[in-house]
Formats: sequence, C-alpha cells, structure tokens
Amino acid sequence: MKMYKFVMPEIIFGNGSIRRVGESCVRLGAQNVFIVTDPGVIKAGWLEPVIESCKHAGLTYSIFSDFTTNPKDYEVEKGAKEYMASECDAIVGVGGGSSIDVAKAIAIVATNGGKIHDYEGVDKIKRPLPPLIMVPTTAGSGSEVSQFSIILNSEHQIKMTIISKSLIPDIAIIDPETLVTKDRLLTATTGLDVLTHGIEAYVSIAATPLTDVHALHSIKLVANYLRPSVASKTNMDAKEKMAMASLQAGLAFSNAILGAVHAISHAIGGRFLLPHGDVNAILLPHVIEYNYISAPEKFLHIAEILYPHKNGISTVNAGDLIVAYIRKLQDDIGAPKRLRDFGLAEEDADIISRYALEDACMITNPRDLTKEDIKAIFLQAL
Amino acid sequence: MKMYKFVMPEIIFGNGSIRRVGESCVRLGAQNVFIVTDPGVIKAGWLEPVIESCKHAGLTYSIFSDFTTNPKDYEVEKGAKEYMASECDAIVGVGGGSSIDVAKAIAIVATNGGKIHDYEGVDKIKRPLPPLIMVPTTAGSGSEVSQFSIILNSEHQIKMTIISKSLIPDIAIIDPETLVTKDRLLTATTGLDVLTHGIEAYVSIAATPLTDVHALHSIKLVANYLRPSVASKTNMDAKEKMAMASLQAGLAFSNAILGAVHAISHAIGGRFLLPHGDVNAILLPHVIEYNYISAPEKFLHIAEILYPHKNGISTVNAGDLIVAYIRKLQDDIGAPKRLRDFGLAEEDADIISRYALEDACMITNPRDLTKEDIKAIFLQAL
Repeated sequence: MKMYKFVMPEIIFGNGSIRRVGESCVRLGAQNVFIVTDPGVIKAGWLEPVIESCKHAGLTYSIFSDFTTNPKDYEVEKGAKEYMASECDAIVGVGGGSSIDVAKAIAIVATNGGKIHDYEGVDKIKRPLPPLIMVPTTAGSGSEVSQFSIILNSEHQIKMTIISKSLIPDIAIIDPETLVTKDRLLTATTGLDVLTHGIEAYVSIAATPLTDVHALHSIKLVANYLRPSVASKTNMDAKEKMAMASLQAGLAFSNAILGAVHAISHAIGGRFLLPHGDVNAILLPHVIEYNYISAPEKFLHIAEILYPHKNGISTVNAGDLIVAYIRKLQDDIGAPKRLRDFGLAEEDADIISRYALEDACMITNPRDLTKEDIKAIFLQAL
Repeated sequence: MKMYKFVMPEIIFGNGSIRRVGESCVRLGAQNVFIVTDPGVIKAGWLEPVIESCKHAGLTYSIFSDFTTNPKDYEVEKGAKEYMASECDAIVGVGGGSSIDVAKAIAIVATNGGKIHDYEGVDKIKRPLPPLIMVPTTAGSGSEVSQFSIILNSEHQIKMTIISKSLIPDIAIIDPETLVTKDRLLTATTGLDVLTHGIEAYVSIAATPLTDVHALHSIKLVANYLRPSVASKTNMDAKEKMAMASLQAGLAFSNAILGAVHAISHAIGGRFLLPHGDVNAILLPHVIEYNYISAPEKFLHIAEILYPHKNGISTVNAGDLIVAYIRKLQDDIGAPKRLRDFGLAEEDADIISRYALEDACMITNPRDLTKEDIKAIFLQAL
C-alpha cells in the first residue's frame, strides 16, 4: 500500500449558509475582507447576502469583479494590486470556478510576490496565504475544496495549473439555494463536470480509499439528481444533492488529481476560451472509451452504480455501458455533444494534442497517451 | 434541510507513515515537541520511530507517559505542568484513545489555563492550542480526527466530555503497521468500538449526508475485515481496512456526535474504570434493540450493508437482523458479552443510569430515554 495524504477545508453546508460568510471571516481573524465575484453572480443577487453578512459581522469590505470566464493572468495581477492597496486581511470568493480560482490566485500574488506564472506547477507557494473563504454558486468546479487554481497564460494561450495545499481554502460555504438561479444549460454542463471529476478521480492513478468513497458517491448522486436538477430551477432536493455531489467530487479530485479529460479540456479552453464544463462534458465519453482497458475493475464499479439493478455487468461490457449511459444523460439534459458546435475544426487537433500532452492532469491518467492518441480523441469528439 | 458543518484534520495514511511525525511537526513550525504516549505503546516499540523521525527532522523532544487508561484530571494537570516547563511548541499523541485524549487535554490546560474541569461541555476553549499531531495505534478511538477529549473527574468518578473544534488535531498520521502489536482481545474490542461509532453516528439526530457516507463505509469495512484482523496479527490488508474503518467512523462521529451506547459507557467507565471498547461492545446490541423504532429506515440501510445478498430485509426485521449479526460477530472474535464479567452488579444500575442521563452523548441519541429505560438496558447487558 502506498502512503497518501488527504486534506479538506472546513465545510459549512446548507440552505442559507451564504449568510454565514461574515461570521466565518471574523472567526478567522479578519476585519476587512476582499470579495472576489463575477458580474453574473452579482446580477443573480448572491453578492447581497454576502455583503449583508459582512456588515452584520462588523467587517469592512472591497469588491473585485474585473475578470472574465477562463480568467487571465493580467486580471489576477490587477486583483492582487487592488488587494494590496485595500489593506484587506482575508479573501472571499463567490461564484463558479473562475471566481474562486481568481480569488486564490490573487491571494498567491499578493502574499508571495512576483507574477502568477511563477507558481505554475506543484508546491511553488512558499509564504502562507491570507484566510480564504469560498462560496461556490455552480455545483461544478469543486475549487472551493481543492488545491487547484487554473489561470490562463494570455501570451501563450495556455491554462496554467497551480497545485498547492496552501490553495485549499480555510472554509468552504456551500449553499444549495444559490443553484436556483443557474439556467438549464449551465446546470447541465456543470453537472457533467461533476461527473467528470468523480470518474477521473476514481480511475486516477493517485486515487486512494478515501478519495474513492467520495468519488463513487458523487457519481451516484449525479446519476440520480442531475436530471431533476436540470428539469426544475426550484427542486431543492435535487439542488442539495447536486451541491453535495460537487463537494464530494471536489474532495476526490483535489486529493486524487484528474486525467485526460481535464488535460485536453485545459488545452482547448486555454486556446479557444470555451466554457470548461461544456468541453469536459463533450470529451468525457470519448476519454472513457480510450481509458477503459486501463482499469476494467474500476469501470465495472462505476457501471454498477449507474445500473444498480442490471444483471450481467462485467469487465467486458462495463465501459460500453458507461458510455451509453453518459450519451443518454447528455440527450436527456440537452448537453452539447460535439466540439465543432463551438467552432473547433480538424486543423486544431495538432496544437491541442501538443498542449494537452504537457498538462499536469495527464500525469495521473490511468492509460498512457501519445500525441496521436490525443489527436484521435479530439477528432472523435469533434 | 438543516445547515451543518464538517471538519477534519489533514490525514497522512499508510504503512510507515509513523516515520513522518518529525517532518509533519516541522511543517507546523515546531522545534521542540512534547510526545504523549503510554507505557504499552513504548513497550510495543512505537515510540522509537517517532523519536527517530523527530531527531532526523532536527527537533528536540520531551516525553510524557505518566497516565493510565481512562485518564484522570490530575494526570492532565501534571502533564500540562511538564509541558509548560519544557518550553515545547507542539504536542504529539501516540497511542490509543487515552494517549490522544490526554495530549489534547494537556494542550488545553497549558494554553488556556485553569483546570481541565473548566472546559467540560461544548466550545469552552477560547485561546488557540499548539499544533497537535496525533498517531493512533489501536484503530478504535477515532480521537485522532475528533473534536472530543474524554477525561475522568477523579473526585466525582465521572467522565467529562470536552467538545471543541479546537481539539481537532492539525495532522492525523495513521499507520496500519502499528496495529500488528495489538493482541486479539484488544483488536476485537476496539474493532467493535469502531462499529459502535459508525452505527451511533449514522442514527444520531445530528447526522448529515457527509457523515453518513463515512459512517456507512466504516460499518461495511468492519463487517468485512474485523474478523480477519482478529484472526491474524500480520494480515496487513485487514489492518489497513480496519485503520480506514476507524478513521471513517471517527470522521462520522466527530461531526455527528454519538448516542446512548457512549453515554452509558462513559458512566460505567468513569465509575468502574473499565476499558471503553469492552463496555461499548457489550452495550451495542442492547441499545440497538432499544433505539430501533426511532429510525427504522436508517437501521434498514445498516442491515443491507451487513447482509448484502439477503432477500426480504425490511423495516420489520432489520433491527433483529443487526442484533443477530453483532452477537454472531462477538462470538466469532471472542468479545466480552456481559457486564457482570467485569464485576458489575444489579445494584449499580441506579447510579449508572443517573450519570448516563446527564452525558453529552445522550443528546443526539435518536430515541428518548428515561432513567428507567437506561436501567433496563443496563440490566439486560448485565
């Protein structure tokens, strides 16, 4: 047995928990908080309860929302400058993966100096970060519990993966009520991102018994609750279950890392600035078809979860069954299925496969890939 | 849905991980560590690798082992004095629940002043504790991940339950190899303690979806691996699985709290200084018989785990099936089954039921109990 670590933040989970941001910041010693959030979240009304709870707790605050989806290095630099000018002593991220990743990246640059590029890779952060409190609003990224931050290198159009235990927030506040303002497409694609996290973490070569528990449970929750969550903005039971699925998938992949779906998706997303969840959703079945022979028993366990009452599942047919399940799920919830719908074309295969091969997430993929293999997956998904 | 929190320490899990104590202390900023361990652990040889790893990491250290099973308030006071005299800056607990609970209690008194009695109850600790690194060697107590410390009030012969998030260690180092020196009786009773933690946490009124996942998985692991672990000192697969079961049951009960088994067991253990695992093991089936009607669906889930291929399990027979399973398990592994074998008698029922009714763990028991109900359970278990 290999030795392994498992780390997670303190979790506060439940409807209305977004109103606990203020007291959570106070508990961590903060007096003046730097709130990182995006315009969509503000428009949806989720900044208000955060601000109110900060005021109620006697905190002052600054707001930074000057960044875009697939957040860029220069946006991080700007945020870090504003943070340092603000004399804030804690950072609160409110939103999807972009908001949370930017919040983390600002924390790095503001306390460790230099540029965000200096921290690409594993364990490059030397000085402690300010208290980090994250409030996810998409049930997708898992960044609120993870040791990852993904920032775009705008010059080279590559997503930089920053991995460090310092990036695990102090407190993750998960309020399923924030999910009611997501539209059905975002609900669908972020939900498939959760499924991708669960499956990639489970078959990762860095998986451990503790990540397996969370990964498998997240897959089960997605199988049972993603469809009803897409079907209704107000089905709170489904929202709660998807929030839990996202949390558990996040715990799994933060500690077990990911695989080829994310490696290829980072390459595509970095080059073409496409939404992360959509690209993952499209790639997932194709990568499973490729990866299947690397871990038939693990894929058998996944198939058993997806088909709880089916007889005759074996290591011969488990991969096909999983792929069929995902394709049906994609149809049911109206998820995108082809990269060409996002403007990608055959001639992009070369550069994407070159970048994907270099991505940090490729290291833990259970099956070896050459550049040609990645190209083939890309073309199948096109 | 109620709002809830979930907190756990950083985990390092695996054979040989006990040799990571030194570097873990350094990572937390320590220079001079206070090692709390008991004579049994020293005799078994597990202090040596801890000391070696501390030396290797350039740390100086002091050792405190002047305490007994069911550790006493005056032993904590002595340890706190030694800690303060030593100028140590971190505390390492190595051993079973007693060692870890004493290590935590020393940390409290040394940094918060007063007597350990001042901290009985919930959230009484105001000042931050020194870094805490815990190395369990029994796969039983779960104290290495919990927010509990149980210390005997020697004057009143009552176990004091101290609950605070501050008591969650910074790092729990779980090395299954330390389990090979346990004798078969200790393996059996600490294993049944794990089962008790899993079941009480799962049916607790403070259970949450996140504690449920860990509780149910710990029950499954005990069902499959406690017998082989008792059967062989060197079955490393079984040791690893029981170490994981103990960890997951600990995560569950630290966040969901416990129930009547622990409340009654604390009363008995405090009064008669009996081993905690043995008393829990005896009480468990009797309390399940009593608690069953409070949560038939939850007990059904437990029965489904214990009997994975049985048809016809329902909320009518699940309680009986669980009790029958535990009795057979007790027989298989040679666990004690009667309190009278420990010298208890009918006339003790009154005082035990009086103290048990006041125990903090009674609050989360799913079925209401009167003093008479507790007395009846005690007499059945006698």
